[in-house]
Amino acid sequence: MSERRVLVTGATGFIGCRALQPLLERGFEVHAVARSAPSAGHAGVHWHEADVLDQLPRRGLVADIGATHLLHLAWYAEPGAFWAARENAAWVAATIDLVEAFAARGGQRVVAAGSCAEYDWTAIDGPIGEDAPIGPSTFYGVCKDATRRVLAGLASQAELSHAWGRVFFLYGPGEDERRLVGGVAQRLVAGERAMSSAGTQVRDFLHVDDVAGAFARLVDAEVTGPVNIASGERATVREIVETIARAAGAEDLLDIGALPTRQGDPPEIVADVARLRAVDGEAPRVSLEVGIAAIVESLRAARA
Amino acid sequence: MSERRVLVTGATGFIGCRALQPLLERGFEVHAVARSAPSAGHAGVHWHEADVLDQLPRRGLVADIGATHLLHLAWYAEPGAFWAARENAAWVAATIDLVEAFAARGGQRVVAAGSCAEYDWTAIDGPIGEDAPIGPSTFYGVCKDATRRVLAGLASQAELSHAWGRVFFLYGPGEDERRLVGGVAQRLVAGERAMSSAGTQVRDFLHVDDVAGAFARLVDAEVTGPVNIASGERATVREIVETIARAAGAEDLLDIGALPTRQGDPPEIVADVARLRAVDGEAPRVSLEVGIAAIVESLRAARA
Repeated sequence: MSERRVLVTGATGFIGCRALQPLLERGFEVHAVARSAPSAGHAGVHWHEADVLDQLPRRGLVADIGATHLLHLAWYAEPGAFWAARENAAWVAATIDLVEAFAARGGQRVVAAGSCAEYDWTAIDGPIGEDAPIGPSTFYGVCKDATRRVLAGLASQAELSHAWGRVFFLYGPGEDERRLVGGVAQRLVAGERAMSSAGTQVRDFLHVDDVAGAFARLVDAEVTGPVNIASGERATVREIVETIARAAGAEDLLDIGALPTRQGDPPEIVADVARLRAVDGEAPRVSLEVGIAAIVESLRAARA
Repeated sequence: MSERRVLVTGATGFIGCRALQPLLERGFEVHAVARSAPSAGHAGVHWHEADVLDQLPRRGLVADIGATHLLHLAWYAEPGAFWAARENAAWVAATIDLVEAFAARGGQRVVAAGSCAEYDWTAIDGPIGEDAPIGPSTFYGVCKDATRRVLAGLASQAELSHAWGRVFFLYGPGEDERRLVGGVAQRLVAGERAMSSAGTQVRDFLHVDDVAGAFARLVDAEVTGPVNIASGERATVREIVETIARAAGAEDLLDIGALPTRQGDPPEIVADVARLRAVDGEAPRVSLEVGIAAIVESLRAARA
């Protein structure tokens, strides 16, 4: 039996599927959970099929695997819909019950995914540190925030080590077309016009490989509490879509300013990443230029 | 089928068992849930045996009963231990899952029990209104607060009417000896010495019959969000134990100041009850004098 055994939920998800290899490389015995395991399983990964929303299989997994570490990434993530969906409530309940069962089974450390949506976006004043005011304006943010509060208290009562990775904006290959980078890249590579807002909003985008790598590091670290998972770098939405257009050689198909800016969209959401840097070193490893070029390349290859 | 059907959890608890009659009187078809139903069932109440902590029976109840209203009082309540117990986390998860299932089944209104421990006790400045700063210092308070945040958001997403009754200090017959009134009364009636701190702390005590009645009213009302359930009246701990001693004719057995005041115990915790009054009229119906005299009387009768 491996001394370090990690249970990963959401293991087929956008982040989860990229966290498995870094965890293997860190010497973990990796147990991945998903509603259906991929047909081409990751070499060296133990797959378990279960719906983490159901209490019996959830607790069964915890009991059977006896993991020392838990990386909990599963959550409702339907693009657009996830902000207001009632499914968020079910994930609060499932997450807390999962961590409680993990603690009761002798689990040592849990790392779970939070969000920059926990912060008060009306109170942003420069890079957002982990101690910035909390004040979610969406149900998703409320649910992530409430989960974190309970988890932190539970960890302290149960002598469980824990970290909470607050994900900012992420992008990567295979992204849904309803998301910014995925949508614009797919349209431009297909030779279609892509519309965007004026794009003056400043955001903090990090490649999903770096997000997944950061989570793997957090599992293997001792840092406690919230840790921003972001690049710490400023990019306007306009710069991002222009980078995609340049990579696609389709600047003429870009229609910046064609869409209205969303009401209440904060002018700037950028992370202070000092805490992450202390754990994860000099990330990001994938720059926006390189990451976006690779996405465009793979979309082109898929069409060829 | 009754048009108004209420599902009551924690129905054999200190508050719950007293909320059934007021709900019947308001015309509800009352479905009471407890791990074990009382042998002498309340006339007119439909009992269901289930552990609300278990997902399958919990969801089964919701599906089978098809309640229009939900009064959720069940929670971990072991005197003393409940402040820090890990069971609080399990109750967050169970509560959210229960309310989500209730909403999905077409439930109309949920009322659940919160606590004055949600407020920031280091920031108290006069009677505590529902908009006072939140800042629980205990795991119990953290869990109640987190549950409320998710419930409020879920109610808004699901078009579910909801109220959150923040219980302050309560007392009543049959109270556990580890609680203030129950402990002092049992000792004095038994002719034993009862020790207390100097008792200068001001608290807001309400008789459990009034607490239960207030919850029944809240179920039958339309008020949204947090509502303090308290008397709005100031009483020092010293006044309370002296009232018990007078009722027991045992003032000589009272040893005020024999125990140290608990570190960090707030000097005053009293509710602003304007919101409750708007729903529940001119409560409290049971004064401290009358309520305590009845407790002493029933303890005496039990010894005779």
